Amino acid sequence: MMGKRQIHLSAYLVGTGIHVASWRLPTAKRNASIDIEYYKQLAQTAERGKFDIAFIADSLAVNEASHPNILNRFEPITLLAALAGATSKIGLVATASTTYHEPYNLARLFASVDHISNGRAGWNMVTTGDATGETGRNFSRTSHVPHDQRYVQAEEFIDVVQGLWDSWEDDAFVQDKATGVFFDPEKMHRLHYKGHHYTVQGPLNIGRSKQGQPVIVQAGASESGQQLAARTAEVVFSHVKDFERAKKFYHSLKSRLPDYGRTPDELHILQGISPIIADTKEEAEAIYEQLHDLLLPEQGLRFLSGYLGKVDFSTYSLDTPAAEVIFPEENGIQSHFEWMTELIRQKNPTLRQLYALLEGGSNREWIGTPEQIADTMGKWFAQGAADGFMFIAPILPQGLDVFVDKVIPILQERGLYRLDYEGDTLRDHLHLKKPLNRFRVRDKQLTERR
Amino acid sequence: MMGKRQIHLSAYLVGTGIHVASWRLPTAKRNASIDIEYYKQLAQTAERGKFDIAFIADSLAVNEASHPNILNRFEPITLLAALAGATSKIGLVATASTTYHEPYNLARLFASVDHISNGRAGWNMVTTGDATGETGRNFSRTSHVPHDQRYVQAEEFIDVVQGLWDSWEDDAFVQDKATGVFFDPEKMHRLHYKGHHYTVQGPLNIGRSKQGQPVIVQAGASESGQQLAARTAEVVFSHVKDFERAKKFYHSLKSRLPDYGRTPDELHILQGISPIIADTKEEAEAIYEQLHDLLLPEQGLRFLSGYLGKVDFSTYSLDTPAAEVIFPEENGIQSHFEWMTELIRQKNPTLRQLYALLEGGSNREWIGTPEQIADTMGKWFAQGAADGFMFIAPILPQGLDVFVDKVIPILQERGLYRLDYEGDTLRDHLHLKKPLNRFRVRDKQLTERR
Repeated sequence: MMGKRQIHLSAYLVGTGIHVASWRLPTAKRNASIDIEYYKQLAQTAERGKFDIAFIADSLAVNEASHPNILNRFEPITLLAALAGATSKIGLVATASTTYHEPYNLARLFASVDHISNGRAGWNMVTTGDATGETGRNFSRTSHVPHDQRYVQAEEFIDVVQGLWDSWEDDAFVQDKATGVFFDPEKMHRLHYKGHHYTVQGPLNIGRSKQGQPVIVQAGASESGQQLAARTAEVVFSHVKDFERAKKFYHSLKSRLPDYGRTPDELHILQGISPIIADTKEEAEAIYEQLHDLLLPEQGLRFLSGYLGKVDFSTYSLDTPAAEVIFPEENGIQSHFEWMTELIRQKNPTLRQLYALLEGGSNREWIGTPEQIADTMGKWFAQGAADGFMFIAPILPQGLDVFVDKVIPILQERGLYRLDYEGDTLRDHLHLKKPLNRFRVRDKQLTERR
Repeated sequence: MMGKRQIHLSAYLVGTGIHVASWRLPTAKRNASIDIEYYKQLAQTAERGKFDIAFIADSLAVNEASHPNILNRFEPITLLAALAGATSKIGLVATASTTYHEPYNLARLFASVDHISNGRAGWNMVTTGDATGETGRNFSRTSHVPHDQRYVQAEEFIDVVQGLWDSWEDDAFVQDKATGVFFDPEKMHRLHYKGHHYTVQGPLNIGRSKQGQPVIVQAGASESGQQLAARTAEVVFSHVKDFERAKKFYHSLKSRLPDYGRTPDELHILQGISPIIADTKEEAEAIYEQLHDLLLPEQGLRFLSGYLGKVDFSTYSLDTPAAEVIFPEENGIQSHFEWMTELIRQKNPTLRQLYALLEGGSNREWIGTPEQIADTMGKWFAQGAADGFMFIAPILPQGLDVFVDKVIPILQERGLYRLDYEGDTLRDHLHLKKPLNRFRVRDKQLTERR
């Protein structure tokens, strides 16, 4: 039964935090991004905060300019499997690419984590932007797959994966010891998928979990990304940082759902936020300044270059107005370009300022006291900008600790957030129904027609 | 320091056991093959027995004839990651295919488990035999890759994977908070691999673990399989069940090592055994008969068909002498064919008998009391047939429990087996050196030449 609409939360877990200088803080843990006990503690903290999701992002290439916390990192799906044993309720979501995996392998990996975690897995499906070509060069490709083609492929990919996840009906494995019948052959289904990119027979060698299938998470903001999400996503993680733009995106995506016979509550939109929280606004601002001071100028330019797809900044000074720089758009991550363009239009920053804006400090509403952060969250949630938030702490573990200890109780008091988990699976937390097995539905329809 | 040569052991963990009827026993756990707590207990039992390895096999396709314990199973690498948290010493090895993965993805998955387990991971590298074509049809392939071509590809694949594992020198991530230097660029290495099948730039986005690199395990018995193993394997799991043939294989493989500048102790050969153990020989024989009685005839033929690559037995009766049946050899698993041919030559069985022989009861030396099993193990170990054993229990968990409780202590008393783990990593258990980083070696050589 659906109760009152409440905020959903996902905790983005990445080493010492999303701020590129977070590792330089005196309290930052060395080798945090590759420390399994550290990650288990982060996930346990998020679970203590009753988060819906512990989220692990990914990339398939690094270079000298990469964020320190992603240079040396766990592969996300194995990390989920390890976190499953250290937690018991929180959903476990990892990013994986439709462009660089075989659907049969990926379907298995997530189905396996879904069983290992007793129905708590989710897949953040990405097509992998690769403006620099470095990812393709790790996968024996001479050129990267262009944006629109990646989405055509992704549409097929998800149909294969979800079809394979239904290879076995829930009661297929009868295991009748007396007669020796292990499974009911009528309840094993071969997919026989034939598409342009994929031809996959099935069945998968793993059955459905307690929640039926892993939850589908996406983040694509482009036109083709939104179409795919409207058809298939159950959670959308959005990077929009500006309130008005966030509302626009929220409305745009939700209004596409009826085209696919879906209702608005079948897809949750989580807006990415990176709050800096302290007992007073001044203290929070001081933390922000401390982080900013730890940035090296060349790191700023390297970050900008990586963020936008290897732009050559060598002829520019840090004080060049960003509006004077020519940014090539081809093949980059569209949401990055859109957000940058918007910032340049609104604030006319120098490159130095642009970097600071992009690196998380862009919206001063997210720097403040626990009450102020809870207010802003409440506003975004109530006014149609978000169903919840992807909490991307600038500093870990402190940012998550303070959020759980100080902001969560305020949200709970205000009735905006669960007091405890009400179910055991990720679908339970998200109030998403266990999906029916598509073959069972089909067979039933066939029977009824006869 | 190398001590006295001792037996190495790997525990093959698969649901209710390798015997195809094991799930029908009254004590057999329902859904064992997909029960994470059950697998954790198996791994903990093996760790209590001081096993070197907990081993998870794999396949990339199932059909109606598949072994019940593999129809609905965990993906092995995620399973290792989950088992890592439930154990602290035992090595964790999983099977993965060079034919159906991208090397960059696979390198990450195993490197990640190696970190998650603090240096206990190993990769059982297989090329995946696929006589029926079913595997290829799960991976958008119109035809399966022929045996020899698979091995050519595998030779490249492992060079890419091991090269990527050395992307970062052990001290690359200096993390100097004062200066803001996160890593030493001189200690990041791009692989720039260019082969016939793979072109991979690197670096990998994960560094080396405590043991340097995951241990390489293989099982190929063919000529190209032995060549690959002699060059790259550190553990070889052999399916040879006959003592004389096992000695021949052992000698053949070990004698190839000098061609690659390797010494015999750099590669351990583990012979697969499926003992049935009880307090008296008669009780053990009774367990064997009980299992045999639980077999359905059609399961026997289905097993044979699957084992040999979808042979059509429909025109044969169960009492047909196997020697009269024509078995097509193309694309099947060569060691299966060789073993079957040998059995037919030696024992002239009917199809019914052939099935029983192939299904584990072939060598009566492995049915008996703990002393008798320890005797046979000691003989194989001392007389040049094995460095240790892949223990493939017909019945789980009972087969492993009794082995650990009753056989291990005898081996220990005889000085043939460790009393406790002497180190923390899988390489420690196997007395394998932590491999030097190839780029560091290369750079050092270049410097010395100057």
